[in-house]
Amino acid sequence: MNYFANLFIISSPSGAGKSTLLNKLFSANLHPMKFSISHTTRDMRPGEIDGVHYHFVTKEKFREMIDGKCFFEWAQVFDNYYGTSRVNIEEYLKNGTDVFLDIDWQGARQIRKQFPAVRTIFILPPSLDVLRNRLVKRGQDSDQVINSRMDKAKNEIIHYDEYDYTIINDDLETAFEQLKNIVLAERQKTANQMVKNAELLKNLTK
Amino acid sequence: MNYFANLFIISSPSGAGKSTLLNKLFSANLHPMKFSISHTTRDMRPGEIDGVHYHFVTKEKFREMIDGKCFFEWAQVFDNYYGTSRVNIEEYLKNGTDVFLDIDWQGARQIRKQFPAVRTIFILPPSLDVLRNRLVKRGQDSDQVINSRMDKAKNEIIHYDEYDYTIINDDLETAFEQLKNIVLAERQKTANQMVKNAELLKNLTK
Repeated sequence: MNYFANLFIISSPSGAGKSTLLNKLFSANLHPMKFSISHTTRDMRPGEIDGVHYHFVTKEKFREMIDGKCFFEWAQVFDNYYGTSRVNIEEYLKNGTDVFLDIDWQGARQIRKQFPAVRTIFILPPSLDVLRNRLVKRGQDSDQVINSRMDKAKNEIIHYDEYDYTIINDDLETAFEQLKNIVLAERQKTANQMVKNAELLKNLTK
Repeated sequence: MNYFANLFIISSPSGAGKSTLLNKLFSANLHPMKFSISHTTRDMRPGEIDGVHYHFVTKEKFREMIDGKCFFEWAQVFDNYYGTSRVNIEEYLKNGTDVFLDIDWQGARQIRKQFPAVRTIFILPPSLDVLRNRLVKRGQDSDQVINSRMDKAKNEIIHYDEYDYTIINDDLETAFEQLKNIVLAERQKTANQMVKNAELLKNLTK
C-alpha cells in the first residue's frame, strides 16, 4: 500500500536535541503530522498521561496484540513490553498525515523490514564533548550516571549509517531547517505524488 | 566515488516552466550550484555564445571525446552530435557544487546507469490544456507546430514515473519551494554527510 504521507523514524542519542527539534517541527504548521505513541506494560510514572506519553496496557492485552499482529515492532525490556502499534499509523498515513516514530536503531531495523517505504533520520550532536556537556547541564546526575549515558549514546551513534538522512545538530535553527526540508521534500517523491495527484497524473498521461 | 554535492537531472516537457524554476533556484543563493553545458557539433545560431548555450566543437573533436570516454551520455540527432561531458561534472561535484543537467528521459536513463547516485526530478504542467495554452501564448506558431509540440510533450510526460521526484508546476512559488526543499534535503542524505563531515563523524564513532 502506498500513501501520500510518510512514516518517519527519528533516532538519536539522548542529549542530541531530538525532542526540541520535533517540537519545533510540530509547531511549524507545515501539514498534518502526528507523533506515534508507543504501547507499554510498565507502570505509569508520576506526571505521565495515558495516551500522551504511552498507551499503558496490561501484559495480557499486550500479548493479545502481539498475537493479533498489531505491532510493527515490539521488545521486552526486563519484565515489561514496549511496542509500536501498526493500526493507528496506517490510519493516519491513509488520511495524509505524516507519522513520526521516536525509536532506536533496533526498532528501526524491525520497521524497515515490514515497511520499506519508511524514511529514517538520525540526529547527531556535533561532538561527544558537546553531548557530555548537555547531559551534565541537564541535572545533578553523578559522574557514574553520566558515563553510563555516554556509553549508551555511543552505542546508538555508531548506527547512524543505517539511516537515510543525517542531521548534525550544532545550531538548532540550521538543524530545524534541515529537518523541515527533508520532511517536505519527501512528499515530492514520485511514488507519493502518484497517490496525491492520481487523477491529475492520469489525465496528463492518457 | 561519493561526493557531498549532488548531480541532478531536471526533465520536463517544453512549457512546464523548467527554465523559470531553474533561474529562480540559481538566483536563491542556497549554495554553489552549476548548470552543466552540453557539447554539440551543430552550428552556432545567432545570439548563442560558446560555453554558455553549448560548448561548440567539431565532429572530429567530438568523436575523440567519445573514444576518450569523456561523455556521460551522448546522442546523434540527424547529422550532429550532442553530449554531456563527464569531466567538468565530477570536478564540480568534488568541489561541493551541485550540478544540474537539463536533459530528456533518454539521457536520464543513460546517466542513471553510469552514475546511480544521480537525483532525478520531473517538472509537470497541471494539465495538458494549461500546457497547450502556455505554448500558444509563447508566439505565433501555427496549430500544426503547436500540435507537434504537444505530441512531443506527451511522449516526454509519460516517463515521469522513472524519476525520483515529481513537481507539478501549477503555482510557480509553490513549485519553486518544492524544488528548493528537494535540493537542500538531498544534502542531508547520510552518504553525502559522510563526505562533508567525515572528520566529525569519525570522532563521534571512534
